[in-house]
Amino acid sequence: MGCELEQNIISEWKKHFILKERMLQVKCSSLTPEPVLRASGHVDRFIDWMVKDLKTGECFRADHLIKNTAEKMQADPNVPAETKEQLTDVLAQLEGFDDKDMHKVITTFNMKSPITGNDLSEAVDFNLMFGTQIGPTGDFKAFLRPETAQGIFVNFKRLLEFNQGRLPFAAAQIGLGFRNEISPRQGLIRVREFTMCEIEHFVDPADKSFPKFAKVADLKLNLFSACDQMDGKPAKPMAIGEAVQKGIIANETLGYYMARCQEFLVKVGVDPLRTRFRQHLSNEMAHYAQDCWDAEILTSYGWIECVGNADRACYDLQQHEKATGVKLVAEKKLSEPRVVNFVQAAPNMAVIGKTYKKEAKKIQVALEQLSESEVEELGKQIQNGIYKLKLEDSEVELKKEMINVKRGEKKVHVEEVTPSVIEPSYGIGRIMHAVFEHSFRQREGDEQRTYLAFPPLVAPIKCSILPIFATKKLDPIIEAVEEQMDTFDLACKVDDSSGSIGKRYARTDEIGIPFGVTVDFESEEKPWTVTVRHAESCEQIRVKVDEVGMIINSLVKGYLSWSAAKEKYPVFESKNEEK
Amino acid sequence: MGCELEQNIISEWKKHFILKERMLQVKCSSLTPEPVLRASGHVDRFIDWMVKDLKTGECFRADHLIKNTAEKMQADPNVPAETKEQLTDVLAQLEGFDDKDMHKVITTFNMKSPITGNDLSEAVDFNLMFGTQIGPTGDFKAFLRPETAQGIFVNFKRLLEFNQGRLPFAAAQIGLGFRNEISPRQGLIRVREFTMCEIEHFVDPADKSFPKFAKVADLKLNLFSACDQMDGKPAKPMAIGEAVQKGIIANETLGYYMARCQEFLVKVGVDPLRTRFRQHLSNEMAHYAQDCWDAEILTSYGWIECVGNADRACYDLQQHEKATGVKLVAEKKLSEPRVVNFVQAAPNMAVIGKTYKKEAKKIQVALEQLSESEVEELGKQIQNGIYKLKLEDSEVELKKEMINVKRGEKKVHVEEVTPSVIEPSYGIGRIMHAVFEHSFRQREGDEQRTYLAFPPLVAPIKCSILPIFATKKLDPIIEAVEEQMDTFDLACKVDDSSGSIGKRYARTDEIGIPFGVTVDFESEEKPWTVTVRHAESCEQIRVKVDEVGMIINSLVKGYLSWSAAKEKYPVFESKNEEK
Repeated sequence: MGCELEQNIISEWKKHFILKERMLQVKCSSLTPEPVLRASGHVDRFIDWMVKDLKTGECFRADHLIKNTAEKMQADPNVPAETKEQLTDVLAQLEGFDDKDMHKVITTFNMKSPITGNDLSEAVDFNLMFGTQIGPTGDFKAFLRPETAQGIFVNFKRLLEFNQGRLPFAAAQIGLGFRNEISPRQGLIRVREFTMCEIEHFVDPADKSFPKFAKVADLKLNLFSACDQMDGKPAKPMAIGEAVQKGIIANETLGYYMARCQEFLVKVGVDPLRTRFRQHLSNEMAHYAQDCWDAEILTSYGWIECVGNADRACYDLQQHEKATGVKLVAEKKLSEPRVVNFVQAAPNMAVIGKTYKKEAKKIQVALEQLSESEVEELGKQIQNGIYKLKLEDSEVELKKEMINVKRGEKKVHVEEVTPSVIEPSYGIGRIMHAVFEHSFRQREGDEQRTYLAFPPLVAPIKCSILPIFATKKLDPIIEAVEEQMDTFDLACKVDDSSGSIGKRYARTDEIGIPFGVTVDFESEEKPWTVTVRHAESCEQIRVKVDEVGMIINSLVKGYLSWSAAKEKYPVFESKNEEK
Repeated sequence: MGCELEQNIISEWKKHFILKERMLQVKCSSLTPEPVLRASGHVDRFIDWMVKDLKTGECFRADHLIKNTAEKMQADPNVPAETKEQLTDVLAQLEGFDDKDMHKVITTFNMKSPITGNDLSEAVDFNLMFGTQIGPTGDFKAFLRPETAQGIFVNFKRLLEFNQGRLPFAAAQIGLGFRNEISPRQGLIRVREFTMCEIEHFVDPADKSFPKFAKVADLKLNLFSACDQMDGKPAKPMAIGEAVQKGIIANETLGYYMARCQEFLVKVGVDPLRTRFRQHLSNEMAHYAQDCWDAEILTSYGWIECVGNADRACYDLQQHEKATGVKLVAEKKLSEPRVVNFVQAAPNMAVIGKTYKKEAKKIQVALEQLSESEVEELGKQIQNGIYKLKLEDSEVELKKEMINVKRGEKKVHVEEVTPSVIEPSYGIGRIMHAVFEHSFRQREGDEQRTYLAFPPLVAPIKCSILPIFATKKLDPIIEAVEEQMDTFDLACKVDDSSGSIGKRYARTDEIGIPFGVTVDFESEEKPWTVTVRHAESCEQIRVKVDEVGMIINSLVKGYLSWSAAKEKYPVFESKNEEK
């Protein structure tokens, strides 16, 4: 059941983003060569701080330990009010703490292992990536990717080509991420292997407007801005258009994705009243990020970050460019051509070749890669004798007769820009958890009768098929109903066990099946008919078996509402619901 | 494009198997604790033999090296005929060779590194699993799963429960497998990370009949039986019913899955004339397997194994039972109750407790786990003094007064059986490769004009939208067509670049878009109309914009054939195809 729910949520995500926005899509491997994750900064900085029980060696995530211990102390009547006040400050600043800050808190407040009460070590860093080796020699180091995003960045050049070299464009990736969490817990909330859906939207850094922004401008989101957080004010609803206009949200593209995020969450069953967009505080934002808003959802574990919407500027592409020496830029057409001066060190290959033979080609390449100021420097030095040019692992001396420093003017029609990246990143497991909680219902007047009111689009099973009594006579009708479901690719479940029909209704309600087909003795009259039950209202209509697939498909896809169905088909009074 | 093709193939697989056969489904983690893969035999036996270049250390898969070298030698006119004959024998037996056999071949035929010509090492084993550590302490060893199947076996008890304890039932898993191939190559054929779709069908070992078998009995498959392979005969078409009846295929359940396999492959675009089912020879079959048929597809790389259909008997469940001590069995109702004798060692807990205190509970558990013959042995020994009972890491001495050996008769209504497992296992990347090759076409009379004739169901993009000239006037119509596509969740691509319409048709054909909508100046007359082009035939019909989504959806899903569409809607004569 969980597989189907997850896949249905992902499938809606694909339609909502990839299909609707005509995004490109990639699928990269989970196994990622070390150089990629070194360039992205993950090898050096993707760490958590942990402390160890000095006697047992048990490990705890330092920030979690501080948070839990502080919360316990605040609930303890024996702790003095002054200490509690200090702890309130600690909790407010915890997100920005480094190892030394945390060690200070642990010693100041005399925090111990929550399991044994033993003393704790200083905070040590722990890289959250799973390492392994590729190939038989053991010297090709790799990691399981901690996010899918890097696969898009390293494929940027090809993706840009697929988009005919034009900005803006977006590429998406759906796949597994792996993080070696120190203490995984809370069901689907903190796990070591999880499905992510990520988008990298590449945009001209000078123009982050979004053509379709007007379509979402009036949508109201619960915004919890950095200012409101600092001022201790609550989140407040605001139209996304207004928030962008007032500069609360950095730009239209980021705002558009936040609006579409809310629409998506509601579509798959998250309660918008229990959703807020929390802006990162400046101390928790990565240094390169320009703005970041997490979609947080209220669950029994508190507010949980389920989606990140970040403007990462041009950080990632520049990092990979630096590491590989490959330009990761897009060409931007200038509104009118511009005349620019250029200076260039043109090699005299005949002379160079005579002196440096096989290295001549390398020298040519190295000269092309010199910046304008380096060429100016070369010009100066070579006048007075020699210029030392660095090659990959050597150095050569160039003389005046080898180089011709050319100057001139040229007309350029394009300029190169490193695109900015807007990154919406969805954690599917966490959203799934929220959908479970927000879909949970109890029947009015009988709290024992619980059900899951999944939106039919994401419900794992769309329809149950229940013969009212166990008898072979009804088998051909059941088979005909099953065929109807198969024609429309609707997942269904036959329950012909011996329980009363009311008990079986309750059982299908509990697993969130939105519609039920009941086959009874009236069904046998030609043309065969069955009842269709709407789980949420317990109401039923009577329809022909020939039409039941089409009707349930329309109800599931939303082409037909239940109230419209009740007007179109005869309502059936059931006496079978268990009270 | 590749992502979509893969996902569409997987989605059809899900409908064809999971949905249609009402299978259970699980999603297990890729990271697998070592004990699971030790129990399954992978830690000890999931290896390839490799040889190393003695000077450079470069590694080669021994069997691949022998195969390639032998084939090269056979093509060499300087190699004597006698040697070539010996090499033919080597190639025929290679699948069954161990390390010593391979070393002998390499030395006998003086085989060298194909890169450097250097001497090679003896064959050494190399485990194909990627290892890593889970958690911060580094002492919890794990592997990336080499197949998804083990996740189903270790969840067998829960799956059986979900099926109300009844056999037969099937569980499926779709996910990544990881194999540290020594030399990955041939595009999607041999990769280190790949998507698998696996089914484990659990069935009573005494009754492997299949209720729906009659539905497929007449389907003809190209069968390449072990006997025909040994006799040097080719594969031959045979009805699956006949093959089971003659005992060529072991049982109905295996036969049913083979028939459904062929139906699936054809549905996603594999040519049935280039598909055969090859039975494993006894020396290549795992020792526990009872029968195994690979679906092999003919590609430019030769016959490639794309699907395995194996009867694995009860091997896997028994292995996990042995490793964990947890019974992995199903209860089978006896046709009539049976009276059986039993003997049982009932502990006198009062006495045992006094002597052994805290260990009393462990003793009780150990006594329950004794087999009948062990209880008989206990009865004998305890009469004469003491019985030494083994506990987990100790031994206790039991005396006569501690145990009461009870005998009696009891009526049993069920017996316990370890289910047999029929395992169809699909490699999606390999099937995708075959679909690419088998879908490749050239236009008659103009071989430069190539296209990919994907079945519309799996085509990455279902429809192109092409304005005949680039003009803003047509934009509202293009948008209306896009909305029609979105309503039916049909992936589409607008190409409003400046190329001629014929060039743009050719471009959409090349990427396998089965249908194209052309917006022309006639489109502007109310009601708006467009043409729909069928890529395979280059024929066109003229339809209303309001209906175009419904029509293309019906064509894609197969509710409407192209020839029926031509009768229903006016045919449009296009002068725009490039000849």
